[in-house]
Amino acid sequence: MATFLRPELEAIKAYSTPPEASSGTLPAQVDYLDTNEFPLDLPAHLKAALARQYVEAMASNRYPDSSHWHLKQAIATYASEHSSVPIVPNQIAVGNGSDELIRALLLATALGSHGSIVVAEPTFSIYGILAQSLGIPVHRAQRHPDTFAVEIETAEALIATATPPVRVLFMLQPNSPTGNALTSTEVAWLRQVPTDILVVIDEAYFEFSGKTLLPELADHPNWLILRTFSKALRLAAHRVGYAIAEPTVIAALEKLRLPYNLPSMSQLAACFALEHRHELLADIPAVIAERERLYRQLQTCPHLRVWPSVANFLFFRLNDPSHTQPLCQALEQQGTLVRAIANGIRVSIGTKEENERFWQRLQHYLSAHSKV
Amino acid sequence: MATFLRPELEAIKAYSTPPEASSGTLPAQVDYLDTNEFPLDLPAHLKAALARQYVEAMASNRYPDSSHWHLKQAIATYASEHSSVPIVPNQIAVGNGSDELIRALLLATALGSHGSIVVAEPTFSIYGILAQSLGIPVHRAQRHPDTFAVEIETAEALIATATPPVRVLFMLQPNSPTGNALTSTEVAWLRQVPTDILVVIDEAYFEFSGKTLLPELADHPNWLILRTFSKALRLAAHRVGYAIAEPTVIAALEKLRLPYNLPSMSQLAACFALEHRHELLADIPAVIAERERLYRQLQTCPHLRVWPSVANFLFFRLNDPSHTQPLCQALEQQGTLVRAIANGIRVSIGTKEENERFWQRLQHYLSAHSKV
Repeated sequence: MATFLRPELEAIKAYSTPPEASSGTLPAQVDYLDTNEFPLDLPAHLKAALARQYVEAMASNRYPDSSHWHLKQAIATYASEHSSVPIVPNQIAVGNGSDELIRALLLATALGSHGSIVVAEPTFSIYGILAQSLGIPVHRAQRHPDTFAVEIETAEALIATATPPVRVLFMLQPNSPTGNALTSTEVAWLRQVPTDILVVIDEAYFEFSGKTLLPELADHPNWLILRTFSKALRLAAHRVGYAIAEPTVIAALEKLRLPYNLPSMSQLAACFALEHRHELLADIPAVIAERERLYRQLQTCPHLRVWPSVANFLFFRLNDPSHTQPLCQALEQQGTLVRAIANGIRVSIGTKEENERFWQRLQHYLSAHSKV
Repeated sequence: MATFLRPELEAIKAYSTPPEASSGTLPAQVDYLDTNEFPLDLPAHLKAALARQYVEAMASNRYPDSSHWHLKQAIATYASEHSSVPIVPNQIAVGNGSDELIRALLLATALGSHGSIVVAEPTFSIYGILAQSLGIPVHRAQRHPDTFAVEIETAEALIATATPPVRVLFMLQPNSPTGNALTSTEVAWLRQVPTDILVVIDEAYFEFSGKTLLPELADHPNWLILRTFSKALRLAAHRVGYAIAEPTVIAALEKLRLPYNLPSMSQLAACFALEHRHELLADIPAVIAERERLYRQLQTCPHLRVWPSVANFLFFRLNDPSHTQPLCQALEQQGTLVRAIANGIRVSIGTKEENERFWQRLQHYLSAHSKV
């Protein structure tokens, strides 16, 4: 490595993204059931209307609105629909995906030996990856092997002994890859986490789960809620995430994000999706029905264990874990991408046809390998 | 501040962005001559064609290509046109604006007391702002008050004595806000900067200046060239910047950028702009002619000093600097935004009409304040 690079970089692992169709390893027709996207694009009439706004109202040659003014207002209105206490724009920070906000809050809290973080594994890997890229220590609490609920006592022990002190606790609800919502015991625990620790509640899958701690936010100035347009609102391509928290916490994130962090088209698309949210969210029940159908199918398999989920994906483990990677490869060769993770497999809920192809291909693998 | 926030945050200043039209302080018609954008949007037929590609070929619900495969190939082809040694895709990293790449290279080189950086003031403030937000010390060399060439001896003295050692030297060519290209003495100096220092040559305004050190890149594995689609290629709204360097340096940046850092529409727009670069860049000579026209006009003013520029902006200072802020406010009230900076004013070259309005408003202010 060049001498101007930090030697620590050798040990840093980047977040692993799926192979691209252009890589030449995939068949022509691919079912993307590996990144928990919504299975449908914007409806054609809405996409055309958004493209018209791009042509008519957006100047490509001008920098984006650095204040995200219109988008913050739209998000505040939307978020307030699920909160007894109204949410106002200065409680909102908008990022280039939630990823940028996660990095900003790590910079705001724990950089330079000021602190460490706690995650409860298995969970979304980006929290730990971004922390490590900044030299921030990551403490890993475990989850109960049957329920995936956080082992609170071990998490508390980590918090009690960590040096530098824990500054952020990351909780994803519903958790990925496991699909479980927070239990009442977990929520009771989060309510009494000391106020010198920021509790990040990542509600990326909120529109599927209907679960949110937003109504309690006003009672907990050390809570921060993350949401995204990448899942139910169908805008993964546009990279828009947001945080909701106390204005002073938001102000700190705003200082640390990049000044023009969100392209104008992404801001436009996010405002547009919120404007048409009733039409977009009307397709959610179909995804949930598909999840429940696939869940019941997987439950009939004697060779695997599947967990219930309140998200738009399911998690299962093969009885013989040595078949996990070969199964994923077999599925990929046939055109179904899933995610091998946490000694199991996470499969996103796609269209009915995609889910059915997955189910047929899974059954085919299992019957061809009768010992699984 | 909340106890989970770093106390250092209080001292961190965010990059200052211009007021938004929505802020209510601006007249209805505004000439944006403050951020060095290209004065024209994409031509209507190209913008419509790009919008069609968005509708037909881009899935809003899918994450962007994390590898930037098509865009890197297009950039490599474009960059190779100005380099005797061909540039290949693995020499290129793409960011959410150059800003993200600047942050990534700071993380890669100087985080955690591994290093410090040198800038030569006055220059683009974001280098220092992003470094400080990461706790990285910033050493500030000066420029010659007449020519704005770097005072090399003082820069070398900083490099010789800095603790932690200097890991990155940021050079902008042409420099902003001052518009000057690197002199042959400066280039000779950059050629012999020790190889344990990364030399970043930010060529954001390359298409206006025609000046590039790219042909020498192969001889200097510690050089990195930054470019952007935000200026001559008219895509400031889409936020696309890129770095060209040795593959090992690029690999380090790729580890540290966010995994899905660039929206699909931004990648699409950047590829599209390169495809149509001959049409887009054909308008550059008109901007340069306008710059020269305004330069000659400003030279006739006895109340200010204007410097020559090879970029798409001009820098001048009033003989009585106490009038700088009042002049900027007077211009803003009439609808011309310029940038007060470095004890002077930087004005971007706009359309002929915008430049003429600026010139009239400036003359009006100067004659109304005859002592300026």
